[in-house]
Amino acid sequence: MFEAKIDAGVLRECIETITAIVDEGKLKIAEEGLKLRAVDPANVAMISFELQSDVFDEFRFAAKEAESGAEDTSESKAETEVGIDFTKLLGILGIGGREEVELELDEHAQKLFTKMGCLAYTVSLLDPSSLRKEPKVPELEFPVQVIIETEEFRRTIRAAEKIGDHIVLGVDGEVFYMETEGEMDKLRLGLRKEQLIHLTPGTLHSLYSLDYITAMSKGMSHAENITLNLGKDYPLQIDFEVAGGKGKVSYLLAPRIESE
Amino acid sequence: MFEAKIDAGVLRECIETITAIVDEGKLKIAEEGLKLRAVDPANVAMISFELQSDVFDEFRFAAKEAESGAEDTSESKAETEVGIDFTKLLGILGIGGREEVELELDEHAQKLFTKMGCLAYTVSLLDPSSLRKEPKVPELEFPVQVIIETEEFRRTIRAAEKIGDHIVLGVDGEVFYMETEGEMDKLRLGLRKEQLIHLTPGTLHSLYSLDYITAMSKGMSHAENITLNLGKDYPLQIDFEVAGGKGKVSYLLAPRIESE
Amino acid sequence: MFEAKIDAGVLRECIETITAIVDEGKLKIAEEGLKLRAVDPANVAMISFELQSDVFDEFRFAAKEAESGAEDTSESKAETEVGIDFTKLLGILGIGGREEVELELDEHAQKLFTKMGCLAYTVSLLDPSSLRKEPKVPELEFPVQVIIETEEFRRTIRAAEKIGDHIVLGVDGEVFYMETEGEMDKLRLGLRKEQLIHLTPGTLHSLYSLDYITAMSKGMSHAENITLNLGKDYPLQIDFEVAGGKGKVSYLLAPRIESE
Repeated sequence: MFEAKIDAGVLRECIETITAIVDEGKLKIAEEGLKLRAVDPANVAMISFELQSDVFDEFRFAAKEAESGAEDTSESKAETEVGIDFTKLLGILGIGGREEVELELDEHAQKLFTKMGCLAYTVSLLDPSSLRKEPKVPELEFPVQVIIETEEFRRTIRAAEKIGDHIVLGVDGEVFYMETEGEMDKLRLGLRKEQLIHLTPGTLHSLYSLDYITAMSKGMSHAENITLNLGKDYPLQIDFEVAGGKGKVSYLLAPRIESE
Repeated sequence: MFEAKIDAGVLRECIETITAIVDEGKLKIAEEGLKLRAVDPANVAMISFELQSDVFDEFRFAAKEAESGAEDTSESKAETEVGIDFTKLLGILGIGGREEVELELDEHAQKLFTKMGCLAYTVSLLDPSSLRKEPKVPELEFPVQVIIETEEFRRTIRAAEKIGDHIVLGVDGEVFYMETEGEMDKLRLGLRKEQLIHLTPGTLHSLYSLDYITAMSKGMSHAENITLNLGKDYPLQIDFEVAGGKGKVSYLLAPRIESE
Repeated sequence: MFEAKIDAGVLRECIETITAIVDEGKLKIAEEGLKLRAVDPANVAMISFELQSDVFDEFRFAAKEAESGAEDTSESKAETEVGIDFTKLLGILGIGGREEVELELDEHAQKLFTKMGCLAYTVSLLDPSSLRKEPKVPELEFPVQVIIETEEFRRTIRAAEKIGDHIVLGVDGEVFYMETEGEMDKLRLGLRKEQLIHLTPGTLHSLYSLDYITAMSKGMSHAENITLNLGKDYPLQIDFEVAGGKGKVSYLLAPRIESE
């Protein structure tokens, strides 16, 4: 059993962080809140998403009964997993205003009810076995952390898109830089430690596909700051908060090998 | 002879209600005002439009002389019918601001002059014989009337478009509902009598093509409320006012047969 | 050597007047400021552009050393010519806000550095020999001058686009007019002397391609007034100021021969 109420704007903000990476995924519901981990179809980008139950105006969850045809309903699990088409859900939520959304799960019928004012939206859950398996989070150690204003990062990505297909993120001493090259031109953002919220000094950089970072930069638009976790020719992990700090998002992106 | 002046915004609002259904049509001009009745090319939707002459800042009409080559100009009719390309006229009116528009008909040259400030637009009238015949309004009796805020109706239509191709409109006791189904999902607006401006209680519903209702919902965007006239597997008639109550619009839409 | 600082909005406004006619061109840099003269690929439209150095917050220019491989660096010229892809530069400038832009020319490396805050953009200069030769400005005498509010002109062009492919600009006594004809309809703007800022009375008109005037009308969007220089079946010259009067733009457009 899962029933909850939440501000429509907060829910949209959360789902937008997910749809930046995947259209659909397995959402885990537990007493503590919601969780999702999913990898994009090309296995290049991953999202880890968590939303605490106390951001909801109401949040009621009781562990799911066993799914098997057998009658042993006594057995129960501490969390429930449901397959959701987030892109479709976001489309419907996008119509509404800033009102409250009611969510209700019907596990037997495999449906999610969404109510916004007088408008009720019912969507069939996706069969979890038809969805990609939840990815393992690789064990990573990032030597460098950079905390930057989201808008500065997003503006640079928008400019970089006009020039190239890849982008280098790196630190050079006490400077964090983003660099993209086209055939004729080159764009570089360089920010000194004092222009950033935080910087671990170092000397390293990695190359990433701009398409994925562009998608991620849309997903982070409601966060004020983001934390970039960097290494040398290493994955990029971007962490930020949503829902007033009650939601946590991590994007993980595989590096590209530089051809030079 | 027809000469008139009208606020550009009011004229645009009126023409938008027409172009929601047809691109071109036969406009009847008489001392009382303007009238149009037209059916869409697929014979599925009809508009009846009336605009009182007193909404115009100036309105002068004198009955048209006989059109025949003969010299009997003594014979006259109480109204004149002109073929107009409304979509084109709306395009030109859309450029202007909120200024006054002057209209002048030249029946001999078969032209309509439109003047907005220093900008004069002259359009040839369409040959009425090239246009579809004015449809007969079928005799209909609607057991149920629902008066609803236009924005609530339009918002539901926008959400429904994301899901399916058809929509059910109906009443169930003292509840008015709109319902659309997709392959995986279902959307339902349910409004109790006290959430509506008016409701005739009953139990009936009909299915309609969403494309037509979407077009109509654009045409009604300036009206505050609309009246839905409903029956069981029956046409839908939507009535509303424009031009501050001086204009009346009725859309009529044939039902679809439910396949179940 | 060329180094300069300028308000980003002013620079964008200037480049937009150029990209209305050409994507790329040879910019001349001298102590007095910047100059460009370029003709569109079809040889129908020309732009002459001048921007005074005192609109810049900083402007430092030293004549370029000889380009030849020889060592005679003592020889110098009073101006430098650089090939620039303006459309690309405008795209990058469009990302930024209203901040200051720093420009720096590296003639040896044939690069232009552009710095907006922490974002540095480096673009390779185009080889001037690959660009169209600077056009000669034909000697023209215009019997009639009309000064008109830019917005009135632009609004008429927007309406004309909905109707035809060509537009007539002319004066008839003390009236300036713009006229375009479609198959079924005709649009005419007529402004009397007192509705204009200036008018030389006369009787003449010329026909122009609307596509080019549409492009030009985008380039002039920041100017309050424009001066139209007109003749009988003669080129059109449109003059206006940008950058608070410190920049001057002239568009020249060849007439079309009327087929009637």
